[in-house]
Amino acid sequence: METVVIVGLGLIGGSFGLALRKAGFSGRIIGVSSESALREATARGVIGESASLEEAVPRADLVYLAQPIGRIVETLPALAPLLGPNTLVTDVGSTKRKIVACASAHLRNALFVGGHPMAGKEARGVAAADPDLFVGRPYFLTPIVPDHLLRPPVATFLGILDSIGARRLVIPASVHDQLVAATSHLPQLLSTALACVLARQPNAHDLATSAGPGLIDSMRLAMSSFDIWSDILETNSDLIDRLLAELEAEIGRQRKKLLDSGLSAEFAQANQFAARVRGPR
Amino acid sequence: METVVIVGLGLIGGSFGLALRKAGFSGRIIGVSSESALREATARGVIGESASLEEAVPRADLVYLAQPIGRIVETLPALAPLLGPNTLVTDVGSTKRKIVACASAHLRNALFVGGHPMAGKEARGVAAADPDLFVGRPYFLTPIVPDHLLRPPVATFLGILDSIGARRLVIPASVHDQLVAATSHLPQLLSTALACVLARQPNAHDLATSAGPGLIDSMRLAMSSFDIWSDILETNSDLIDRLLAELEAEIGRQRKKLLDSGLSAEFAQANQFAARVRGPR
Repeated sequence: METVVIVGLGLIGGSFGLALRKAGFSGRIIGVSSESALREATARGVIGESASLEEAVPRADLVYLAQPIGRIVETLPALAPLLGPNTLVTDVGSTKRKIVACASAHLRNALFVGGHPMAGKEARGVAAADPDLFVGRPYFLTPIVPDHLLRPPVATFLGILDSIGARRLVIPASVHDQLVAATSHLPQLLSTALACVLARQPNAHDLATSAGPGLIDSMRLAMSSFDIWSDILETNSDLIDRLLAELEAEIGRQRKKLLDSGLSAEFAQANQFAARVRGPR
Repeated sequence: METVVIVGLGLIGGSFGLALRKAGFSGRIIGVSSESALREATARGVIGESASLEEAVPRADLVYLAQPIGRIVETLPALAPLLGPNTLVTDVGSTKRKIVACASAHLRNALFVGGHPMAGKEARGVAAADPDLFVGRPYFLTPIVPDHLLRPPVATFLGILDSIGARRLVIPASVHDQLVAATSHLPQLLSTALACVLARQPNAHDLATSAGPGLIDSMRLAMSSFDIWSDILETNSDLIDRLLAELEAEIGRQRKKLLDSGLSAEFAQANQFAARVRGPR
């Protein structure tokens, strides 16, 4: 693999460039992004060159789409006429059904493997890029044709993911979207809902200033920007809605039991699941 | 203040003893607790002596009840015949209406100020006691008679709280219970509800193993033990139920908007409240 084109130089795109270099990649890294992001990415050593999509993609062995979901879906059709037969296209979109459907429709003859690194932090933009962002994190891969995983450019990319420390998980797009609806989108909306309910209390000011560590932690996700979440929620709303309905029912059950038999069984079930999520202490 | 009696040597009682010593208190600290807790507390230097309630309380200038709510409510009536006219009784129960009502009924002629340090950590027991547990944390005080705050033994106790680094907040018991229903009990039940919903998914195992940082944080409170929460929920169920009803309605609203106009306004409101809780970054 000689030439990597990173389209979209935010936190993830920038971190991928830095991680590539840290892992010893010695080829070209070309950036396609806004002027300000390109300037910052060049200054931080994320990219060696910048170019337009039309100039960069024909030279690419790997096209790494690190844009928001809505932009990825706009970029994919534009790639079709620019791609060589062995160029691998991958993306980092946080939902996969819509992107995989779009790639299937527009890149029928190309090599495409959807991707989603479960990595992030509160700071955004290439200024926050971190070569270790992917270390130990799940990295979902959703091929449109399972056989593509055996093709040499894909094998090379999988080796790159290993070298930057990511934990690869190959799953169908629909299974991916179910997973993230539960592990990411539901916790996000719960934190947002909790913040909204508390913000509307008459004593909201006192609540904010007397918060203990539990509430402080519970408000971390509520800080998330709708800019990022708008596309995610829109492209996974059916699966999220099903889980929100279950949560609504669970809260109704809690209310009944709170005033009646108590929540001992619920705490026991939650203890057990939480222990599996958080691992041995 | 010469003699402090700590009743109940768990995390909070043990930490109060260590904090007293660290702040330079040179009087007697007598422990009343289970045999095993007394042994551990003596070994860690939390207490200098141990005794029964009946032996210890008549010698006390300050009786510090660091038991669970249910046990505090049992201890208060037993204190009445043992207290001198200038002995201050305080407690650390996580809800205050029931305890203050009980103290008003049974300690009518004594000096009682309810207390609730918003301090804690995951580890429990006197083995986890920490002299810095109260530093920078809110410490609620709910007097049964506001004038009691002016009495010399109370003034001395307030000075002790300052010296161990706690942030004193004097409020009525009912206002306290509203605050903690929102800032502590609601986040706890939400984390428990989220864990229960996820635990019941057919792919619960995959959810647990592919969790990102958002879910991992969201599951911290779900680890909480029902032993501790049983009393708290029972003595504050009316206020908690009201908030759970608001949350249920908010989730219903989210579901509608998710499929319709989007959650931009909700994210903006949540961003603002969360920023106030988490302070300047």
